[in-house]
Order: sequence, then structure tokens, then C-alpha cells
Amino acid sequence: MPKIPRHPDNDYTPKAADERRDFIRRQTGAELHHVGRYSFDPATVAGNIEGFTGVCQMPLGFAGPLLVHGEHARGEFYVPMATTEGTLVASYNRGMRLTREAGGVTVSVIDDAMQRAPAFCFADARKARDFGEWVSAHFDEIKRRAEATTSVGKLRDIEQYAVGRFRYLRFNFTTGDAAGQNMVGRATDAACHWIVSQYSDIESWVLAANMDTDKKYSRLNTLNTRGKRVVAECVLPDALLRERLHTSAAELFTQRQISNLGSLMAATNNNGAHSANGVAAVFIATGQDEANVAESSSAIVHSELTANGDYYYSITLPSLIVATYGGGTGLATQRECLEALGCQGRGKVRKLAEIIGATVLCGELSLGGAMLAGEWVSSHERYGRNR
Amino acid sequence: MPKIPRHPDNDYTPKAADERRDFIRRQTGAELHHVGRYSFDPATVAGNIEGFTGVCQMPLGFAGPLLVHGEHARGEFYVPMATTEGTLVASYNRGMRLTREAGGVTVSVIDDAMQRAPAFCFADARKARDFGEWVSAHFDEIKRRAEATTSVGKLRDIEQYAVGRFRYLRFNFTTGDAAGQNMVGRATDAACHWIVSQYSDIESWVLAANMDTDKKYSRLNTLNTRGKRVVAECVLPDALLRERLHTSAAELFTQRQISNLGSLMAATNNNGAHSANGVAAVFIATGQDEANVAESSSAIVHSELTANGDYYYSITLPSLIVATYGGGTGLATQRECLEALGCQGRGKVRKLAEIIGATVLCGELSLGGAMLAGEWVSSHERYGRNR
Amino acid sequence: MPKIPRHPDNDYTPKAADERRDFIRRQTGAELHHVGRYSFDPATVAGNIEGFTGVCQMPLGFAGPLLVHGEHARGEFYVPMATTEGTLVASYNRGMRLTREAGGVTVSVIDDAMQRAPAFCFADARKARDFGEWVSAHFDEIKRRAEATTSVGKLRDIEQYAVGRFRYLRFNFTTGDAAGQNMVGRATDAACHWIVSQYSDIESWVLAANMDTDKKYSRLNTLNTRGKRVVAECVLPDALLRERLHTSAAELFTQRQISNLGSLMAATNNNGAHSANGVAAVFIATGQDEANVAESSSAIVHSELTANGDYYYSITLPSLIVATYGGGTGLATQRECLEALGCQGRGKVRKLAEIIGATVLCGELSLGGAMLAGEWVSSHERYGRNR
Amino acid sequence: MPKIPRHPDNDYTPKAADERRDFIRRQTGAELHHVGRYSFDPATVAGNIEGFTGVCQMPLGFAGPLLVHGEHARGEFYVPMATTEGTLVASYNRGMRLTREAGGVTVSVIDDAMQRAPAFCFADARKARDFGEWVSAHFDEIKRRAEATTSVGKLRDIEQYAVGRFRYLRFNFTTGDAAGQNMVGRATDAACHWIVSQYSDIESWVLAANMDTDKKYSRLNTLNTRGKRVVAECVLPDALLRERLHTSAAELFTQRQISNLGSLMAATNNNGAHSANGVAAVFIATGQDEANVAESSSAIVHSELTANGDYYYSITLPSLIVATYGGGTGLATQRECLEALGCQGRGKVRKLAEIIGATVLCGELSLGGAMLAGEWVSSHERYGRNR
Repeated sequence: MPKIPRHPDNDYTPKAADERRDFIRRQTGAELHHVGRYSFDPATVAGNIEGFTGVCQMPLGFAGPLLVHGEHARGEFYVPMATTEGTLVASYNRGMRLTREAGGVTVSVIDDAMQRAPAFCFADARKARDFGEWVSAHFDEIKRRAEATTSVGKLRDIEQYAVGRFRYLRFNFTTGDAAGQNMVGRATDAACHWIVSQYSDIESWVLAANMDTDKKYSRLNTLNTRGKRVVAECVLPDALLRERLHTSAAELFTQRQISNLGSLMAATNNNGAHSANGVAAVFIATGQDEANVAESSSAIVHSELTANGDYYYSITLPSLIVATYGGGTGLATQRECLEALGCQGRGKVRKLAEIIGATVLCGELSLGGAMLAGEWVSSHERYGRNR
Repeated sequence: MPKIPRHPDNDYTPKAADERRDFIRRQTGAELHHVGRYSFDPATVAGNIEGFTGVCQMPLGFAGPLLVHGEHARGEFYVPMATTEGTLVASYNRGMRLTREAGGVTVSVIDDAMQRAPAFCFADARKARDFGEWVSAHFDEIKRRAEATTSVGKLRDIEQYAVGRFRYLRFNFTTGDAAGQNMVGRATDAACHWIVSQYSDIESWVLAANMDTDKKYSRLNTLNTRGKRVVAECVLPDALLRERLHTSAAELFTQRQISNLGSLMAATNNNGAHSANGVAAVFIATGQDEANVAESSSAIVHSELTANGDYYYSITLPSLIVATYGGGTGLATQRECLEALGCQGRGKVRKLAEIIGATVLCGELSLGGAMLAGEWVSSHERYGRNR
Repeated sequence: MPKIPRHPDNDYTPKAADERRDFIRRQTGAELHHVGRYSFDPATVAGNIEGFTGVCQMPLGFAGPLLVHGEHARGEFYVPMATTEGTLVASYNRGMRLTREAGGVTVSVIDDAMQRAPAFCFADARKARDFGEWVSAHFDEIKRRAEATTSVGKLRDIEQYAVGRFRYLRFNFTTGDAAGQNMVGRATDAACHWIVSQYSDIESWVLAANMDTDKKYSRLNTLNTRGKRVVAECVLPDALLRERLHTSAAELFTQRQISNLGSLMAATNNNGAHSANGVAAVFIATGQDEANVAESSSAIVHSELTANGDYYYSITLPSLIVATYGGGTGLATQRECLEALGCQGRGKVRKLAEIIGATVLCGELSLGGAMLAGEWVSSHERYGRNR
Repeated sequence: MPKIPRHPDNDYTPKAADERRDFIRRQTGAELHHVGRYSFDPATVAGNIEGFTGVCQMPLGFAGPLLVHGEHARGEFYVPMATTEGTLVASYNRGMRLTREAGGVTVSVIDDAMQRAPAFCFADARKARDFGEWVSAHFDEIKRRAEATTSVGKLRDIEQYAVGRFRYLRFNFTTGDAAGQNMVGRATDAACHWIVSQYSDIESWVLAANMDTDKKYSRLNTLNTRGKRVVAECVLPDALLRERLHTSAAELFTQRQISNLGSLMAATNNNGAHSANGVAAVFIATGQDEANVAESSSAIVHSELTANGDYYYSITLPSLIVATYGGGTGLATQRECLEALGCQGRGKVRKLAEIIGATVLCGELSLGGAMLAGEWVSSHERYGRNR
């Protein structure tokens, strides 16, 4: 079959896109009528896609208002969500009403790091260990080389992991408002070339070898953070839960224990319910890298029954990758959604992280409640053991 | 802050969407100009979103042709990819050229199951065990109750997992061309209500408790499949790798060993490189549930150096959730993309699964090669130990 | 250096052992005085060790009485524990008093399986899948071949796992009073040879490839059981906890939540405290394979606060490997310890599993209480949030 | 049933042990004849066991000579192994011969840390984060308080992990020749009491909460080391493998790939074969804490085919807990076994760690070879794909 047409001189024009739709139409019979109905200048997507052919139109709605007590996001927000899954927006909206009536969601960014993790190979493990000590001793010089490649990225520290005759270095950077994967890749590469020029025992090295870990979930990222580590918290009065969710704090807590046990058995990347829904919907709406849902949806839920019978609920997102600059954040609709959150432009990335964290929490409570109200059944006792 | 306006009688109209954009504009200052530029009748998104307000326009391109040797997908395909990440389409396109020149990608759907996993609680572990035996003995009756709720879903088997005084049942269904989460939820719920009506020792139960595991990665799904289990395979001649990727079979194999080791250390859900990129881009283009990237991007890569020095590469996607019916598959642009793949409508879901599997494989090879050609450096020896 | 002397004709004599101790003494200077002080005929350890040279004398004590409500172990037991760790026996003893005063430990063997898991390799994944279907269709014949090698072992079922061009089969057997690793190895090998003689597409196969998983912890064994799956349970009255452990049900429950969270973060094979202590001490005393501590100490703790404020505690041991026949169970001191439990000889293996399960539970409670009574401190509130 | 007799004044006498054996005999009918045949003064086991009643006599043999190229262990060693599993000593012995003929095992201790990990609870996540910063700023003072409790232990660093409203601190110490669990517990407790006296926002804390992680396997310990991190390495000539193991480097490498894949699927704590065997046998012989087999047997195997067709094999033990001082190391037979290794007394702990690491490697090769020689079968091609 023939190749898809490209225009080497300028490929980002309506004409080039038209030609490609025509080509696909001829080859496959698909009309691509709606795909061709975009509202922006194709020149604006240079850097975001190759062979621009049109758009996928993803339905967009807003949930809220969401009441947030962050350090950066403070007050009420209408949260844009792009999705094709019915009930998603309604469910998050219901959760937002619940937490608003409970006094709002407290949310904090508690860690921040983006990494690239090269691996170095030596004749044996002892030489690999000695290299590790050399790296620690030369951190300042390594940092200088890495940071010379970027005006924004700062090398925070280098973790080291050892196995066999290898030493994996995990370079942790802060990256401003960008997600920063490319930034830290370039910076780490520069640092590695300097290291290799200085240290003679290295047999070979590779810039990345799955200890970053990019676009995938890992225990390591759960422990040590990738992107932003965000904790959202809320105390839900028992009376409010009974009124709004037709359940109770005690029932939600019991259900959580059983879900924790299920997660432990199944070995999930998430002991919560469906954070991926909220993360994906806001990611797509606001121009985040949609593939990062793989790691950004990882979550740890911890809840407690308080002494007076209310429900403390927290969700920790250990590897939430967000940006308000670069990537898809400047695209036509995506930028408008960021504007609706007051998160467009520089200095806003933690605000966005807080809003997403709070949004995710609302979705967890809403689904948990729905399951209990309609579907939790007991033939003997309703609220758990011995009642 | 005020509530977002809804029209209880008919909320899926251009007017309702206009009012909501106006509302968001007044509340936040965001123009939402581009968000309002959709090309379809809002009535068509009822069932896909609540409070429809407009669209996110995600750039769309095509990669290919991709040469596939599946049982359902046979021949060459142009693969629609919606993304905001520069280089993604180009990289997959390069991988498709490579595998085309290598003779194409063999791909097979080797398992198929969608599940809902209720948990049942008893006075003690012994009673929970006895219940498990009762369930096994009454499988036919349970199956009849479950299948009475659906014309498509078939209950294949029920796995059982035991911990403490709980018994988790994992109902495995086949679900035709639908992803089937809702279908199996309803069917399992019906079965559970019958079970509870028959078996008197159940203290309480819940329809889902994180052993499904929906919208999250789990070891259990990696072992036992969720959605489709797809294996894509290709043998790449060493000479071709040298010509097209400027690397070699031996180098790629060595790099893979180091990546496997990194994955093992970091405990990733994926020992490959970036399957989430390909999965997310095709998912969004074709109306799949974007949140399922969390579990669908999980992968297991296995490669070998063949006796004559070529490179056998395989990637297993153990929990690829796809549909050609229901969900977002009928939306305007999404349906057009499915048509371009010849995957629109019933009886096409395995074909789509095969195309996605083959696509993912191409992206892995392309990124692996890029990393080696530019960035793999050895100060002593180029190809590994003792050379 | 010279080789250790062996006597090809009869190596299990006092003289052969003497010569080896003399040899080691000459080579290393170590006297091996105490090592030579064994009380049994060396002929009795043929089959248990090669190059018998003497003994390690491990201190032995008894804890109890332990009140057990099993299906096989009923009543009170004095539990032999061999250890070198001070406080271990005392701690388990304290826990046994506690549970005795609480009415005893309920314990149940809820699953039973020993496995060998060969891997088969094919030209591609599709052929591997087809082989899997053939195996399912020929289960009865495979079972006949496997069981022809043993008078005790019964093939229960064969699990299948698929990745790349491989099919892993996991043969699950029951093995009577033996642990059965060798028995199932021989039976599976026979079955595999028959399979290979019948099915022509197999490129290669190997009898074991880490899906058994022998002498190591795995998620798979936690899910699907290896050896005995044992659940021990107890309800501890709050008043008793206050009197005996100087803590309370609420404090223990709160501590458990924090330990669960820590386990989740650290990704442990055990969310409990120190089951390995009890398992190892009873294993050594009773002649179990001491290396199996690796998998047998895996545990899942689940606890609850009951409606009246008492503490329900359960521990599930998903892969407890025990025997009352074969291995070290017939050795001089080991057999005496089994006799003290009434577990010597055939038909006793589940009784032993129950006693070990109950013992482990007692140790968990004792350590949990010790930590809280002495070391749990609160500067603001003692019992948790908002109190 | 009556309580086991104790002598409050002096419980470590032959008379007290006699009385307890009499007691058990009367209660259970077990003679405990051999249990009573110990050769040491019971006073020497005070601190190692409570209610000393006799001994378990575990058969002891020696394997070797083992040729080790460590930094501390250099030369040939006869390794004491206590076991009840037939073939174990023979198998390790065979592996030692193999590696001796290959030039010996290179082994290195590449990290060293023993930890206690308290958890601190705050009103919310933000306060927990701020506490973490305070801890970093006050490291020197915390270190001073911790080290005041011990003449040996040194606080190396404090890792921090955050989830919900908790902050887990992981105190890493070096502990001289002792394993050090008690030493670091006491030191961390002292440090925590000082912290709590200084920092007013702490709601509650607990000294340990499963992030240490003591007596259990964890991903965290695999990444960050517990006890000694030991790597053993060897290059096995292909010709030697053919002669001694009746297999080849290529076959062993292929088998390893399949085992790695199986481990990945099953999610084991060890992608090797049976390190628990070697670890347990030497642990028991030399007075190590036998319960630590749970974490000490964790391993990561990495092997390579070298350019000239030989076999590079490495095994990393990330959490090997060993001591040459304290615990059971001073007991009668255990001390003799340490003497036979030249590891008795102070300054010898790394030497012992190296010997155990090298021993474990030998067992892996021996078992791998045995499996291939007898049991690896191919109906089409012997050495793998396309040959």
C-alpha cells in the first residue's frame, strides 16, 4: 500500500491535512468528515503531532464547583472533563457537591521530581560500587553539566541502585511548569557524557533502562515520586453521608477495608476505586500527555473513622505528571480549559496538580457511595460484623 | 459559586451547550471559543457525557501502513492516533516501516475475559471455604441467573480467592464486541442476589472490592487476563536493523536485558518501553475508554537472539480493554477512525485488538532503536562484555 | 585444598563422621567438639544429608498450652520451638495465654495444593494457545500419566499462563502427609514426557521455570496457594487486651491500619509482624524443610473492631509447606517434637498446619501489644485522630 | 492443661530442662530422649531461648572447598551446612567444584544498612510534609541522640516516605558485626522520643510500621538494602559446563530467560532457583537468626552469554542479614562452625557475607545444570529457536 503523503516544506497546513484525509478516504473508504472539522490553524500543532490530518472531537463537560483548600488552588473551581464514558461527569459532580458541603478538600503537593535513570555497566560489581562512590563525590560537577542544558531544570539529587555488575543512577530534577521528561533527558544525557569522559572503568551505558520509570507504573515511583506527589484529604460528617450518599461513615469504612484486602491480594497499583477516570478526563481536557495516565492514576487511599463517627478520607497520588507549559497545554481547546481553571501559563503547575488531586478524591467518594447505597446487601446484618 | 446550568427536559442541545459555555465564561473568564466548535449533533453524545459543553479537539494523525498477520486483521492498515506528544506518530510510523520490511507483525488474541469480582463475608474462614464449595457445585444455576440479564455476555467461569473470613469470587465473562464492564456488573449483581437468596450464612457482600480490577493495573489481571490478552511478534533481520535503526540485533538484545533488570528492580507494570503511548493514542482516536490506559498499557516484553543472529521480539498485552460497539465507539470522529481500520460495527473487536497489539510492538522497536543509535555509548567496548 | 573424605561403600557411620570432623579440624583449626555430640545412629540420616559430619544443636523450648479449635487439632497443645533468638519463646507463650483466655484460636485449612510448573515453547503465541486448548482437552490422560508415578499424589487441576511464545502449565497436586515437592516433580515430569510424545509442535520445554514457585515467595502462590492455605482467627475482648497487653482493641486496630499502609508502600510479602519467627522455630523443631520459611512465612493479616469494641484478628498463611511424613520428620529429635504435638505419622499433616497457624497468630498479637504498651506515644491525643 | 514449669531464680540448668522434658512427657507421651542429649551448659543459652528444654539436632555436613575472591574472604573454604533435605549438600558441593574449576567466585559486599522505621501521624498531609523538612534540617541532632544508645551503631541517613497524613522515617544504621535489629530499635526509639519532645505537631507515632521491613521480604529492601547487599559473580567456560554439567552456556542462558519470564509473571521475590536452601543451611549452622531466611533469601540473578560463548553469572542478595557477634553466633556448635570458616568474632561479618554469597551462587548453577541435563527436552530443536 502507498505511503501517507507528507509535505517536506510545510506539512502543517489545511491543504496537507486535506490531502491526507483524501488519501485515507481513498485507501479505506472512511469519510473522515468530522475528523476534518477543526477550528484552529494547523501550524499551531507543529511540535504536537506529525502528519496532522484532523482532530478527534472528545465530548467535554464541566463538574463543580469544587471547593479546594490548597496552597496554590484556593476557592471554587469548575473542572473541565473530556470523556466518552457516561456517568463520569455526573459522578464527579456529585462528589464535588458532597465535599463542598463537607467544607472542601484540603490538598497539598508534598514532593516534586522528574527523573531520567541511566544504567552503567562495569567489569564486576565491585567496580560498579566504586563508581557509585565516585558519583556521590562528584555530584556538584555532575549537577553543573546537567543544568547547563536547561534554564529551568534543577538537579535535586541522584539516587543509586545496584544489581550485578550494573549501577543505575536516578537523576531527580525539578522542572518548573513543564512535565519535563524531555528536559531531564537532555540534561541527564549531557551529564552522562561528561561522566563517561571522566571515569574510565565504564564498559557501556544506556540513558534509560526502566528505572525512571516513564509511562508506566512502578513501585519505585510510588515510593520516591515521579512528577508531583499530591495528597487530597477531607472529613465527611456521618450525617452528610447519610443524607447525600444514603450510606454511612461506618459502611464506607468497612467497604474500604474489604477493598484494601482485595487490592492486597490482586496486587494492584491503586487500592482506590477509579482515579484513572478523573485523571484521564482532566488530562485530555487540559492538554496533558494522555499516556501518563498509566502512572498518574496510581493512588494510595487511606481512610479512618474519627472518634465522633465521621469519615476521614485521603488519597495520595504519588506520580502525577502535570504541566501548564509545553506539550499539549498551548493547543486551542486545551488552553481554554486551563484558562477556565486559572491555570494557564507559568507558575501554575502546582495549582493544577492540587485541583486534579481534589477532583480525584471526589470521584472516589461518589463511586464508593453509589456502590453501597444500591448494591451492598446483607442477609443477616447490615453494617458489618456482630450488628 | 453557582451551579452549572442543566436542562432537565433535554440537556443535549446546542443551546444547552451554549448556555454552559456562557456560564463558564462568566464565571472564569475563559472564552471557550474553540471548545464550542464541534461538528456533530449534541444529541449523539447522550450516554457519553453529562452536561455536554463542547469538545476537546485532539490532533489526529495516521501511521502506517502497518502490515499485520492476525487471525482477524490481515493485510495493511493505516492506524489513527490522537495525541499531543510530538514525535509519537513519527516514531510509530518508523516502527511500522521497519516491521513491514521485516515481513509484518504476527499477532494473536490468546485469551478474552471481562470480570466483576464480588466479595462475601462470613462468620469465619471455614464458613467462607464451605461457601466456595457451594458456589462450585451451583455454577450452572449461577450462570443461568447471570446470563438472563444479557443477550451477549456469557459466564465462562468463576475464580475464587480466599483471605480471612472473606471469599472473593471473580466472574469471568465474554462480552462480544463491547468492553463489557457494565454488562458484567449487571449480570454479576443479578447472580449475587440469587446467591444471597439461596445461601444463608452470608453476613454481608459487596459487588466489587478490587479484585476485578477495574481501571487499574494488577498482577492478577496480568496473570489471568482482563479484556483481551494479545501477543504481537516479529523477527527482525539483523541487516535490516543495521540499515534502518543504525543498531544491531545484539545491541537491542543487550539493551533489553538491562531494561528487564531495571524493571525487575523498580517493580514496573511493564518491562517494555512506552506501550502507553500507542495504546492511549489509538484509544482516544477510536473511542475506547481513555481511563483504561491504566491497565491496558501493561505489557510483558520477551525477546531472543535467533541462531542466525536476527532478533525475535514479542510483546504481550495481558489486559487490553477494547470495544467496537458501545461506549465512545459510535461518536462522530471516533466512528470514522474505526471505519478507517475496517473495525466499525459488530464482530470486529478482535481485529481491533490485533491492530493495537501490532501497533504497540512497532513503537517499542522504534524507541529502542532510537535510544541505541544516538545514545548508547561505550568507552571500552561497544557491544557488551568482552568484545 | 583437599577434598572432604567420603566412604563410597557406607558414608553414614560414626567413623565416617569422625574422619570428616578430623579433616575439617586439620584444615581449619575448628575443634568441632560439640558438633560431634549427636545421639542417633548416622544411618538414620541417609536421605537427609550427604557427608554427615555431626549436628548443629539448636536450643529447644516449648510454648503453651495453646488452645486450638481446628478441624483436626482440637484442644490444648505444647508447641516445640527451636530458636536462637531471645524473647521468641516468651513472646509466643504470652500470646498463647492471651488467646487461651479469649477462648482459643479457630483455625482452618482452606486449600491444599503442591505444584510443579513446566514451560513449553512454540514457534509463536498462536501455537502456544492452541497447545493450551489441547492440554485442557486431554486432562484425563495427562492425569493418568502423572498419577502412575505415585501412590499418594493426585493431580487436581492444571493452571495455564501465557506469555510470548510460551505456555506455562501449573500442575496442582494433593500429596497426602508429605510436603510433596519431589513427588509432584516426578509426576509432572512423567506427564510432560507423555505430552511431548503426543504433541508435535513443542520446540522445547523445561520442567520448572519459576511459576511453581519453589523456595521463594510469589504473588501467584499468595493468590493460588502452595502447600496448605491456613486461616487462624480469634476475637479478643477489649477488657482482656487492657489487662494482659496494657493496650486496647482500638489502639491495636489503629496500629494495624498504619502497618497495613507501611506494607503497601514497602510492597512486603506479609502485612503482619513476624510470622517468620514462629514458622521457622516450629519448622526446625519438627523437621520441616527450613528453606521453605521463605514462602511459608508469607501472610495476610486482616483485623476488625467489632460492634461491641472487641478485636477480631485473622491471619492467612497462603503457602504453608508442611509434612508429617518424609523429609526431616523422621529424624531423632524432630520426630520427638512431632510426637509431643500428636502429629507423628500419617493422616496428621492438616493437624500440624492448624497448630502452626494458631501459633503464628499468637505471636502477632504478642508483638503488637508489646510495641504499643511500651512505645506508642502521642503528644496530643492517645488513641488516634480527634480524641 | 497446666503451665510449663519455670524456675524464677535460675531457669537455665540441666535440672530445669529435665523437669520440663518430664512435664512434656507426662502431658503428651513424647519421650524427648534425643531432645535431652545436648552437650553444652544450659547457662550458655540464656539470652537465646526461654524455657530451655533441650535441643533439636540438625544434621550437619560440609561442602567445599569453595574458592572465593572477596575483599574479606580470600581463598578456599569448607562451608558448614545444617539441613534435613537430601541432595542439598551434594548439590552445593558440585557447584563449588564447578566454580573452583572455573577460577573461583568473585564476591563483594556493596552496601550495608540495618533499619528501624517509625511512622508519625499529623493533622494533615501538609503538616506531615513540614515535619519531614524539619527532620532533614535536624539530622545531626537526631543522629547524636540515636548514637548515644550504642557504642557500635552509626546512623547513616534517614529515608522519608509520605502517604496520607503520615510520615514514615527509615533510619539506616551500620551495626558492626552484629545483625543489629535490637541495636537500631533502641537507638531509633531514643531518637524518636527526642523528636517528639521537640516537635509539637505530632499526633501520634509508632516505632515500627512495616517499612523496615523486618523478617519479611519487601520491594523496598530489595531496592535499598537491609543487612548486607552482596553480589557474587563467576564466568563459567562453555567447555567446563559441557564437561561437568552436561549442558552448555547457551542452554543455561536460554533456561535463565524462561525462568526470568516465569518470575516476572508469578511476581516472585527471587528470579533465581533456590537461594533459600543455601542461606537456610548456613544460617542454621552458624547461628544466624533462622527467621531471616524470609528476607535474606531474596535474590536477583543476572546472567550473560559472553562474546566467546562462555557464561557470566551473577546473583545479588539485596537483604542478607548476617552476624558474627551476638544472637546465636556464640552457641556451642554454631561457634564451632564459624571457627571452621575463620569467621568467629569481631571484624568478620563481611567475610561471612561473602562466603554465603559465593555459596548461594554455586547452588544456583548446580541446580540449573541438573535440570537441563536430565530434563530439558526438545522435540524439534535442542538449543532454542531456529537451530
